Amino acid sequence: MHSRNYLVPLHKGRTEVDFHLSVDCVIFSIRDKNLHLLLNRMEPVRKWMLPGGFMFRNEDADQAAGRILKLRTGVERVYLNQFKIFSDPRRFSFHEETRKFPLTPEEDALLEHLPDRVISIGYFALVDFQSVTVTGGDFREETCWCPLESLPEMEFDHAEIVGEALRALRKEVQFSPILYRLLPEKFTLPELQNLYEIVLGRPLERSAFQRKVLRWGIFLRLDERKEGVAHKRPYLYRFEAEAFRMARENGRSFGM
Amino acid sequence: MHSRNYLVPLHKGRTEVDFHLSVDCVIFSIRDKNLHLLLNRMEPVRKWMLPGGFMFRNEDADQAAGRILKLRTGVERVYLNQFKIFSDPRRFSFHEETRKFPLTPEEDALLEHLPDRVISIGYFALVDFQSVTVTGGDFREETCWCPLESLPEMEFDHAEIVGEALRALRKEVQFSPILYRLLPEKFTLPELQNLYEIVLGRPLERSAFQRKVLRWGIFLRLDERKEGVAHKRPYLYRFEAEAFRMARENGRSFGM
Repeated sequence: MHSRNYLVPLHKGRTEVDFHLSVDCVIFSIRDKNLHLLLNRMEPVRKWMLPGGFMFRNEDADQAAGRILKLRTGVERVYLNQFKIFSDPRRFSFHEETRKFPLTPEEDALLEHLPDRVISIGYFALVDFQSVTVTGGDFREETCWCPLESLPEMEFDHAEIVGEALRALRKEVQFSPILYRLLPEKFTLPELQNLYEIVLGRPLERSAFQRKVLRWGIFLRLDERKEGVAHKRPYLYRFEAEAFRMARENGRSFGM
Repeated sequence: MHSRNYLVPLHKGRTEVDFHLSVDCVIFSIRDKNLHLLLNRMEPVRKWMLPGGFMFRNEDADQAAGRILKLRTGVERVYLNQFKIFSDPRRFSFHEETRKFPLTPEEDALLEHLPDRVISIGYFALVDFQSVTVTGGDFREETCWCPLESLPEMEFDHAEIVGEALRALRKEVQFSPILYRLLPEKFTLPELQNLYEIVLGRPLERSAFQRKVLRWGIFLRLDERKEGVAHKRPYLYRFEAEAFRMARENGRSFGM
């Protein structure tokens, strides 16, 4: 990996890339009872970044987000939520960025056609980190799951994008029961409660929590209990997509 | 107004306009107990549109939305919520659009520099229609408050943008008590309930509704009653921004 990899889009498929538009993905997961984020690093001398990249001219933002997440990390088939765009005119400048590297005359000529401002479309996703395969994608980049509480210094406005993603996640949690996506297919109610407490940043009372989420009618109790737990083995539950669809159509709210 | 007005951005301030990026504003209001939208029409032969326009290179999307809403309708100082971007590669083509008009050779030359795809950033706002002044903006365009239930045929993908704005509004209502923005500064609880029923599309039980919104602790009951109401004169209330800020910080949810 050398510094020119940063300019890959300048070389590859120049005609299909829309350099005005990028996407950045904030991929949340839970490890050791803490929120973690999936980050990329193109080479050791650069700072960590959110997995992101430029849109193609012939795809929309959702398509770009799925393609780019796979390209940069190898992760695929993840439900991505578009949450905000980042459009500060000073957020990223090709001209300033590329001045950091020695450029060939061809690269220098290409730069003239690049925009002053790239807007980025932010997406977030929730994944069970054991179910996804992180390969580093096509560029075989360095990737890591970094704890949200001690993120490294990040490129560009990526720290701001993470902050806004967390706000969007907390908001979404008041509307939609999405947190189950952080868990394996079968999970216990204490595991689910733990996620709500982590994301909302406050403790919840156990029996009130369980009453509330069971009233939603979207988690099916299985005839199975969690193994490997010392004394009380709690029941396992599963999310029921069809029940959720009906509950939502009936105007049910899923706030905590 | 002649057809060339459509090309105003090509002439005016060409260097400052970023033709890759536009904003469109969905301005909701209530009239006759129905949701209405503020629409623009540049000239009678064209279809109705959402108030929108191109971003400048030196402004971010929020700044653009405020500037453009004022430019097109005269409406200002409105709280605009960015809710989604629209990035389908086929959603708008300068080349197809301008082919509908006779172009001067200069206009034709300019067209070469324009992008294939313009993405649009959708904003919605809630306004008390009596408190805003709609002038038609700088272009003295035709404007109207159209009932959501019988919108005219609209340009481009603007009907889709309206649908997504309504979804975003219904979602926001589960999270934030924003509907009071559709009302004058002083309002009654039955007026507020009426708004929730209109936006959510279902009837609500009166006493449960009042208990719930009063528990939020963000509406101050005034020592005043609504005049001009036949028998029972209901109390007037006012939104308290400071109480709302505190309630939100304490993690209170405002779902219905």
